[in-house]
Amino acid sequence: MELYYGTISDQLITLNDDELHHLLRVKRAQNGDEVFITNGKGQLVSARLKNVSKQNIELELISRIKNESRRSGLHIAIAPTKNLDRMEWLIEKLTEGGVDKVSFLKCRHSERKEIKIERLQKIAIAAMKQSLQSFLPIINEMMPFENFIGAPLTVQRLICTTEAKETDLLKNIYQHQPEIIMLIGPEGDFHTDELNRARSSGYQECSLGSQRLRTETAALAGCFYYNLLNQ
Amino acid sequence: MELYYGTISDQLITLNDDELHHLLRVKRAQNGDEVFITNGKGQLVSARLKNVSKQNIELELISRIKNESRRSGLHIAIAPTKNLDRMEWLIEKLTEGGVDKVSFLKCRHSERKEIKIERLQKIAIAAMKQSLQSFLPIINEMMPFENFIGAPLTVQRLICTTEAKETDLLKNIYQHQPEIIMLIGPEGDFHTDELNRARSSGYQECSLGSQRLRTETAALAGCFYYNLLNQ
Repeated sequence: MELYYGTISDQLITLNDDELHHLLRVKRAQNGDEVFITNGKGQLVSARLKNVSKQNIELELISRIKNESRRSGLHIAIAPTKNLDRMEWLIEKLTEGGVDKVSFLKCRHSERKEIKIERLQKIAIAAMKQSLQSFLPIINEMMPFENFIGAPLTVQRLICTTEAKETDLLKNIYQHQPEIIMLIGPEGDFHTDELNRARSSGYQECSLGSQRLRTETAALAGCFYYNLLNQ
Repeated sequence: MELYYGTISDQLITLNDDELHHLLRVKRAQNGDEVFITNGKGQLVSARLKNVSKQNIELELISRIKNESRRSGLHIAIAPTKNLDRMEWLIEKLTEGGVDKVSFLKCRHSERKEIKIERLQKIAIAAMKQSLQSFLPIINEMMPFENFIGAPLTVQRLICTTEAKETDLLKNIYQHQPEIIMLIGPEGDFHTDELNRARSSGYQECSLGSQRLRTETAALAGCFYYNLLNQ
């Protein structure tokens, strides 16, 4: 089964441009071929190709296979690493892990002050298709730490830091609310001012355990721990 | 704090060759400098450099910082992916996650039939140093699936497969024994014959959850789940 990414409405199923190109040029699609399409929002359908031309195809619904509501309420907000490969890898793994949202933070100790999210969105689409999932994480543009934590939110808010007490393990403080935000700091952790501001914005300190983990490993550990706590 | 890898006995502390080279050529070490050394088996000491020459140095113990017994009893046995980068990445992350042993399996559906472990051992050393740990995983040479599962063992043995029932989640079947082996199959899962042979060798089927994970992601999820269940 090969999965494609597109939009699905009651009347119309369409593929996004990259997907259409892949199907026409690489796969040399023919009239009558059956394909699977997800909208990245929980829906997955099978469809038959019609009126295949050099530029376009039509998709006729065969059956609706999945229509799931959101699976995860986890929002990871992370200070990206200097090495972009590590962020690309993380996005692939968080997509497999089913995370709902990823945001990027500009922190005092950040080594990377900007990040282009278009490439990361493509990586997420590829990972979603490869792991046959019907959910695509929302990837947000980078913003300063202060702006992010200042947003009024009614969800559980955690800041993962080596300053957290041993008793502040995720499994002890997780409240099973529908949504949770987990902040992951840069190498060298959050600045003391940032920790203080987060506390006054209602963030609880959280420990992911005694191991010292790299930034991207901590984010993925947070995602898997969250999944296990929700199994 | 920069950590080096070597051997530590009552009388003598030595560095392995790569580490000695790094300290002499890259770091331009001087008499009197203080360094930190781990033996990868739970010991971590600080030492002072003496008699630094072009080829060698002596290390004088300053203090013993850690002397821990083994932290994890997790042995991951995995069919390596075709793409070697994914295995290198996995070894780095499993080292951060504190796994005890990694073995490589040659399975029916394996796309990679051999793997050189020297490079992986170097990656594990680098990851151990970077994450300031005092444990290095043991990395074993590849062996055929049948030989691996045939070894007589008195530990909990799990085979992670998409064939496992929903109730066979790791958190439901984990027995908190001192040691546990977790088998992770290739893309396309284990062959039915392999699953049957594993069952008759005392392996229980294990599910890591409803997500479809790539081989290396499944191995890392298993490691983090194990850590959370032991927190």
